Amino acid sequence: MVSLADVREAAKRIAGAVERTPCLHSHTLSRLTGAEVFLKFENLQFTASFKERGALNRLLLLPAAERQRGVIAMSAGNHAQGVAYHAARLGIRSVIVMPKGTPNTKLKNTQVHGAEVVLEGDSLTEAATHAHARAAREGLTFIHPYDDPAIIAGQGTVAMEMLADRDDLDVIVTPVGGGGLLSGTALAAAYFSPATQVVGAEPAGADDAARSLAAGEIVPSVAPRTIADGLLSSLGELTFAVIRRLVERIVTVGDDAVVSAMRLVWERMKIVVEPSAAVPLAALLEGELDVARRRVGIIFSGGNVDLTRLPWIPEAGLR
Amino acid sequence: MVSLADVREAAKRIAGAVERTPCLHSHTLSRLTGAEVFLKFENLQFTASFKERGALNRLLLLPAAERQRGVIAMSAGNHAQGVAYHAARLGIRSVIVMPKGTPNTKLKNTQVHGAEVVLEGDSLTEAATHAHARAAREGLTFIHPYDDPAIIAGQGTVAMEMLADRDDLDVIVTPVGGGGLLSGTALAAAYFSPATQVVGAEPAGADDAARSLAAGEIVPSVAPRTIADGLLSSLGELTFAVIRRLVERIVTVGDDAVVSAMRLVWERMKIVVEPSAAVPLAALLEGELDVARRRVGIIFSGGNVDLTRLPWIPEAGLR
Repeated sequence: MVSLADVREAAKRIAGAVERTPCLHSHTLSRLTGAEVFLKFENLQFTASFKERGALNRLLLLPAAERQRGVIAMSAGNHAQGVAYHAARLGIRSVIVMPKGTPNTKLKNTQVHGAEVVLEGDSLTEAATHAHARAAREGLTFIHPYDDPAIIAGQGTVAMEMLADRDDLDVIVTPVGGGGLLSGTALAAAYFSPATQVVGAEPAGADDAARSLAAGEIVPSVAPRTIADGLLSSLGELTFAVIRRLVERIVTVGDDAVVSAMRLVWERMKIVVEPSAAVPLAALLEGELDVARRRVGIIFSGGNVDLTRLPWIPEAGLR
Repeated sequence: MVSLADVREAAKRIAGAVERTPCLHSHTLSRLTGAEVFLKFENLQFTASFKERGALNRLLLLPAAERQRGVIAMSAGNHAQGVAYHAARLGIRSVIVMPKGTPNTKLKNTQVHGAEVVLEGDSLTEAATHAHARAAREGLTFIHPYDDPAIIAGQGTVAMEMLADRDDLDVIVTPVGGGGLLSGTALAAAYFSPATQVVGAEPAGADDAARSLAAGEIVPSVAPRTIADGLLSSLGELTFAVIRRLVERIVTVGDDAVVSAMRLVWERMKIVVEPSAAVPLAALLEGELDVARRRVGIIFSGGNVDLTRLPWIPEAGLR
């Protein structure tokens, strides 16, 4: 359902308006993991995550009438910023629904791009319900954070670029929440480099994707507990269909290892990554994957962190 | 005393063993300052600062006999790491003297590269005295952190690279402590792009370089008070001679502005810079320099920060 042409066209459509981020070899991480590690820096996108790619691809595919009426999305995180920023750039009205109790910084980080932000519902599910209702009422188009072919094709451009830069990667590891990045990556690998394996990495406290893959059906994410706040969602119908068919494995890793990996990246590489982005590296460092002497691509998916609440500073941290 | 050939040969000598760091345009910082801002990412060096350049150039110029006996340096910061790392790489014994009371993390960050670290003296001056005494006693060569032609030539390769990448910079702004980077930059600009101005930026609480330039003689740094812990030293004879002749201006900026600029870089660019590295940007953001519509190169000199003590987290911070 998302074809080679869809990914290629997504890449052309979004070119120039999202960064073609670097994919660089890391000497330090290679030494620590025993693999040859290549990093894709999606944290260097303007709104600091890969989410812009899918969001922009989706917005550019809107028919003129929908474009004129505007869009609505539900997200307290990176999807919100991606939609808000590119909608504003394109002169499209955007409404972002976040659950009540969302930290004020997340609200502001989305408002600053020109979106109308509303707080509704006590959970992601309730906020989504509200967003769908308002979409129907006002004729707004709902932009799903992952379960949409245009979103998946957009996220697939990350791995498409990686494989253009390094056509000999043995494996690519991505974080998995709703599965947009993982399914897009799996499709891109299948189309552009079938010998490249794709593996998902998930926090142990939100391991619904690993359980879904094991069960052969979507196991919803119920009361997930993890510091990786970008990976709380359940898989979608479309993303699961791809993941089930094309993803080799989903590995899980505890929050302590995620925090250590995140801190290592800040300390040694001088790059800010968010907890969700550190999950694949944490899995490698914990030995969850046998990567010795293999060429491993890791997607640093995002870099949005509240700098006043860092998990390794107990008195100020989240834990 | 440091010729065009010295800088060119330093560049050849250290090539391959230090990073040729990127020099990139920043859309965000350009918008915020009204200038066209280009950033040189010296924080991405292996030991996270430009100090490696001068240190390695100096080490490679050692006569065989001195190389065999080993080197000694006095530094609690980036010079220590630069000397320790490259000495170890080259199989040269290194001793690093730090003042008593130096935080344990700084000690460890230098030991990890294989240096013998000793704590001596209650101030930088006392530690330096001890280092000179021990150098004489054990036949070690003292590697000065800045007041040495080989060090200045090495630091000059930063601007040499910038001007190779962007030959139309109107001005380059660097932090100034002992003056190694500033004098090397001024020489490189004079040799490779005489139309490019060079400006130093200094914390108001350690403004000895600004006062020295105004007085026409070295005014020592006495009891400096600033968060920019890499910029506490007094100018040297050699660095001052260059700065006096070739540096247009030295601007000063308060610590609050330095912390804001540092946080801005972390938050918006997802890059870790240390307080000293944020001083030039702080000066721009405070309007200390008229840079409107000019092409301004800024050197992000380093990225070594204790991640458990961040200045914007009051309960954990330094202030």
